Amino acid sequence: MAGSSFGELFRFTTWGESHGPAIGCVVDGVPSRLPLDSPDIQRWLDRRKPGQSKFTTQRQEPDTVEILSGVFEGQTTGTPIQLLIRNQDQRSKDYGDIKDKFRPGHADFTYEMKYGIRDYRGGGRSSARETASRVAAGAIARKVLGSAVSIRGYMVQMGKDHVENALHDDAEIDRNPFFCPDAKAAARWGDLLNGVRKAGSSVGAVIEVVARGVPAGLGEPIYDKLDADLAKAMMSINAVKAVEIGAGLEAAGFSGEENADEMRMEAGQPVFTSNHAGGILGGISTGQDIVVRFAVKPTSSILTPRHTVDRFGAESEILTKGRHDPCVGIRAVPVGEAMMAVVLADHLLRHRGIYGGAMP
Amino acid sequence: MAGSSFGELFRFTTWGESHGPAIGCVVDGVPSRLPLDSPDIQRWLDRRKPGQSKFTTQRQEPDTVEILSGVFEGQTTGTPIQLLIRNQDQRSKDYGDIKDKFRPGHADFTYEMKYGIRDYRGGGRSSARETASRVAAGAIARKVLGSAVSIRGYMVQMGKDHVENALHDDAEIDRNPFFCPDAKAAARWGDLLNGVRKAGSSVGAVIEVVARGVPAGLGEPIYDKLDADLAKAMMSINAVKAVEIGAGLEAAGFSGEENADEMRMEAGQPVFTSNHAGGILGGISTGQDIVVRFAVKPTSSILTPRHTVDRFGAESEILTKGRHDPCVGIRAVPVGEAMMAVVLADHLLRHRGIYGGAMP
Amino acid sequence: MAGSSFGELFRFTTWGESHGPAIGCVVDGVPSRLPLDSPDIQRWLDRRKPGQSKFTTQRQEPDTVEILSGVFEGQTTGTPIQLLIRNQDQRSKDYGDIKDKFRPGHADFTYEMKYGIRDYRGGGRSSARETASRVAAGAIARKVLGSAVSIRGYMVQMGKDHVENALHDDAEIDRNPFFCPDAKAAARWGDLLNGVRKAGSSVGAVIEVVARGVPAGLGEPIYDKLDADLAKAMMSINAVKAVEIGAGLEAAGFSGEENADEMRMEAGQPVFTSNHAGGILGGISTGQDIVVRFAVKPTSSILTPRHTVDRFGAESEILTKGRHDPCVGIRAVPVGEAMMAVVLADHLLRHRGIYGGAMP
Amino acid sequence: MAGSSFGELFRFTTWGESHGPAIGCVVDGVPSRLPLDSPDIQRWLDRRKPGQSKFTTQRQEPDTVEILSGVFEGQTTGTPIQLLIRNQDQRSKDYGDIKDKFRPGHADFTYEMKYGIRDYRGGGRSSARETASRVAAGAIARKVLGSAVSIRGYMVQMGKDHVENALHDDAEIDRNPFFCPDAKAAARWGDLLNGVRKAGSSVGAVIEVVARGVPAGLGEPIYDKLDADLAKAMMSINAVKAVEIGAGLEAAGFSGEENADEMRMEAGQPVFTSNHAGGILGGISTGQDIVVRFAVKPTSSILTPRHTVDRFGAESEILTKGRHDPCVGIRAVPVGEAMMAVVLADHLLRHRGIYGGAMP
Repeated sequence: MAGSSFGELFRFTTWGESHGPAIGCVVDGVPSRLPLDSPDIQRWLDRRKPGQSKFTTQRQEPDTVEILSGVFEGQTTGTPIQLLIRNQDQRSKDYGDIKDKFRPGHADFTYEMKYGIRDYRGGGRSSARETASRVAAGAIARKVLGSAVSIRGYMVQMGKDHVENALHDDAEIDRNPFFCPDAKAAARWGDLLNGVRKAGSSVGAVIEVVARGVPAGLGEPIYDKLDADLAKAMMSINAVKAVEIGAGLEAAGFSGEENADEMRMEAGQPVFTSNHAGGILGGISTGQDIVVRFAVKPTSSILTPRHTVDRFGAESEILTKGRHDPCVGIRAVPVGEAMMAVVLADHLLRHRGIYGGAMP
Repeated sequence: MAGSSFGELFRFTTWGESHGPAIGCVVDGVPSRLPLDSPDIQRWLDRRKPGQSKFTTQRQEPDTVEILSGVFEGQTTGTPIQLLIRNQDQRSKDYGDIKDKFRPGHADFTYEMKYGIRDYRGGGRSSARETASRVAAGAIARKVLGSAVSIRGYMVQMGKDHVENALHDDAEIDRNPFFCPDAKAAARWGDLLNGVRKAGSSVGAVIEVVARGVPAGLGEPIYDKLDADLAKAMMSINAVKAVEIGAGLEAAGFSGEENADEMRMEAGQPVFTSNHAGGILGGISTGQDIVVRFAVKPTSSILTPRHTVDRFGAESEILTKGRHDPCVGIRAVPVGEAMMAVVLADHLLRHRGIYGGAMP
Repeated sequence: MAGSSFGELFRFTTWGESHGPAIGCVVDGVPSRLPLDSPDIQRWLDRRKPGQSKFTTQRQEPDTVEILSGVFEGQTTGTPIQLLIRNQDQRSKDYGDIKDKFRPGHADFTYEMKYGIRDYRGGGRSSARETASRVAAGAIARKVLGSAVSIRGYMVQMGKDHVENALHDDAEIDRNPFFCPDAKAAARWGDLLNGVRKAGSSVGAVIEVVARGVPAGLGEPIYDKLDADLAKAMMSINAVKAVEIGAGLEAAGFSGEENADEMRMEAGQPVFTSNHAGGILGGISTGQDIVVRFAVKPTSSILTPRHTVDRFGAESEILTKGRHDPCVGIRAVPVGEAMMAVVLADHLLRHRGIYGGAMP
Repeated sequence: MAGSSFGELFRFTTWGESHGPAIGCVVDGVPSRLPLDSPDIQRWLDRRKPGQSKFTTQRQEPDTVEILSGVFEGQTTGTPIQLLIRNQDQRSKDYGDIKDKFRPGHADFTYEMKYGIRDYRGGGRSSARETASRVAAGAIARKVLGSAVSIRGYMVQMGKDHVENALHDDAEIDRNPFFCPDAKAAARWGDLLNGVRKAGSSVGAVIEVVARGVPAGLGEPIYDKLDADLAKAMMSINAVKAVEIGAGLEAAGFSGEENADEMRMEAGQPVFTSNHAGGILGGISTGQDIVVRFAVKPTSSILTPRHTVDRFGAESEILTKGRHDPCVGIRAVPVGEAMMAVVLADHLLRHRGIYGGAMP
């Protein structure tokens, strides 16, 4: 209720600050007897961890996860799973500047207004470092979903430059440092981001996450619609400013004839001939791919000085030196996948609670 | 938890089907001693009710609200407030066609998959008729927020046609049947929608909702961020496919320098020189205007036949005769305002619970 | 969250005041395709309704329930079920005395302190009239549990007079106005209560509720233990001051040897040779009978004047004329059964959500 | 929702098994700027920790708490507080017997039925070791309540032997190993428990917890009544079988005249002349002392062999050697205090959320 938890039946709660001793999360509502060991979680954390290319922050964090509870002899026991990630690279630098000044675009001002105190070291609780815990929880959610459901995220826009849908190739996604499914776009983005990085600037991005194999029927009308919970999940990721389902904003410009996904029978099953709905109708999954996109604003940490004020009411300037991601959208890709996984796992359990059904 | 409730401290639960005897909601967590009488709610319902122009459905519903509990001698008592709206105009028509066929773009198929049964009359629970209850709950939320907070929604795009920001005039919003703040756009939209209506087609829209006077500090990191809850609130409205906060999708194309809202002092108070953030940083209100936009897909009820299947697995065609809104976006405006109000009221109470503070 | 809701997956919210136009509840999380019609609910309401013997209040309320939503063609649809009960017998008497004076033992003082306003007519929201809504929700919960689970409540103590366990006969329960399973005790209680009633006094009671056929495995450690949720459920009933599970308070005086329920095999199944645990170990059902008892204080409405104060800080005396139950414990029996049913239904759905399984 | 969390606005979630690497909890919803350091928590943990007298288990656990988040420069920041307690004395013994056999009175059978797997080492998650996390969370709750509220628990019955109320002396509570307020009873209990311990047996107890200085108005009707939440809180403690508020079970034997707490004015304030209500009317605090009692069953770990069955369906016998508490009621005293604190803190925040008010 104070906001650090997500989910109803499958529910996790994260804790920890950027420069505290550790971060982590406790995941409750995990079915028992699922095989789980730390490498099952580590493999997803490794995709998000910093310092993997010159295009992400140079902070060195191995993000090694420890399972402290809820797993016995390699299987979940049904009791809460506590995951712990030690912070390693809390650089002992002088925080004098950000201690008292509010960095534009960051949460410094609002945390000060809400709490009257803030752990300013590296942004404290508002740092995107918290998203490592989401990825860890997402790894467990994937276990709950089982192998029939696959979730894939990728970047479809960096700055103003879009991928070309015709060039989309899933196999390409892991071949470049941008999770870009279009090899040509990836090449352009390398140049673009080099320039941005050298200028001490930053750039935004759009991420698309697709879930395949989701059964029809997940999602609870009216308020806990599957798309409503996905919108909340994605908007809760640091720096996200927009969320779209299926055709998204473009749907506003469609006519009713263009928008409606028609149906026909195929091999005895009803199928859709298009997917403008993004796999969700009336808040409930259709069995088609679930398609979500979200827009990430450019990193607010830049080298150009910006006007600001400080805690004492004086006008000032600030620029953010040191380690940062020139495009936080890159590392938001595995985070978006994790949030998709936790929403689906929660809704799978919720649906099964009310309507029954076997384990996946 | 089954999805018909919204909010934590200020929480409402809606019930009722399009063609059942009544719809309504129960609102719990309302502070006591707020002046409240049915006209306080009726005035907002009247803005949403159908049949006010030729551009909305011709179903005749006075949407008269009855307060059944929680109010005593014109004041709230702190106990749950039950609001009841009788359905009047359930046309006794033949539902044969939609009883067994799944209307493309509607929730017929997914309700069938989830529940194995559905009240097909007028869409049952999935009908946008449910949104009257949201507007009623929103009226109470406005009382909680007090007069210092004002909430205003308006349409900024119909089909592919945008308003011009330079022509925005709040006073214009209630002068046309589209809640359009740009008189010239309103004129164009009248022509556009006449054509759409006569063709038995439909068109989408984009709505913007702005809240002024919201104090800094509302919103709970990390998952119950103010923007995350607004995204969920708006995405839960029927037919919504995208939600943006502040600069929204456009932020993806900004550089860090362009995006950051700088600060300076004015009359001894910190102020921002722009509002790309939409009044929210790190999930917490900044004190600036809260700015949310959402995209509404075109009504799926159209006169052109579409391919579909039926419950028995046979391919078929369907067209939707009878009463419908050619642009559901119009009546979504007061609904979006209501959802803004309930999110803010809930977060006001939540913040006050943890940090104290006087009534507004 | 404001306290008028109960349950997680199977959740109901009640509303309404003793002398308002109506009371009722909305029940969400009900599985679809359960046969349900108003007589299924009415039969349980009829057991609780007043005026059935000279030993309960003479207020005449038929407690006729109307189903306003969530049921279609005699089956639940999975959407929220609104139940409405009109208040009929709001006697137009002078409330002058209780308007300003706090009745000892009643909630007048605390509602005044909490809310600064109260609907004093008949106790308003704090009246046990609210429990009719619980019984209605319990009727739906029984449908969720199915016929394999049976729930039976009865009175085991009136005033200081206990039933004799050796004389317990289930068939006797409905043959006397006290839900008493011991015919001899029932005879004694008739005399006792006649005297109490004529003296304008009142008397307390102890109720036992037993659920048979509950499968092993329901209940969530650590905080949402089945017994913890039952304790909350029963303690939330008006006038309840104590809750026991199984051996209850007596267990404090047992030795470890006496207390432990031993196990053996019977027809290939593990069985217990005693049930001091009341069917719950570690917060989880064992498959044995679930046994709960609760103590009800004597009605606070009595004819003997008591010292009190009024809203203006003046000392005063008050006596409560008019209609009341000399032993509220009687009508608490069906309420206790209903609360058992809703707790079990909720935990059945919760368990099934996380671990799967067929419908009952 | 899976049951490891407690509270709404002030909410904590515990995790960890008896013989895992660590246990702990995350506490969310803690107001910012409360002074907090580990000794503030340690002092309460020290009252519960084992091995402090010959009357509690000889397991050696220093129960040293580490604060991993949510505190900065000695003050709470408003973000979640993760508390970690390393398990030290996991004796590397042979668990063969309890691995497959269900210990009567323990949760072995029910965990097996629910989860199909269990961490049998020391009882795993069902061990009362979890209650250390409750005490830690309770320490933070006391900070939220402030110094005006004091909470005191003590044992009023061991086995069948009661304290004498006339001999109650608060100062005595910490002078004996039983938290006993009656010096004579404490002396008797020493003899009693010596005998029990030497016989390898165990004995139950009754604990009373009193909160002084609680303001009137806390508690939410109808289901989240203060007494209902206290009942749940206490019943959720391991081995508890009954909960009473105020006069409790005895109230069933009272007449209405005896039961009602009369009021008069004193120094301009309304006061009560008795407290049978235990400080709660209609689920809301009256301003009087909040009085709760709970009964603890005797430890199920005893040296006398008991009949049982094993996982493979064979009948068997079991006795529990090794370390155990002959009267778990002793160490339940600080746990009961902690649960009182968390319930009050949560309701303080909830009340303030809806009705406003300053920090305590």
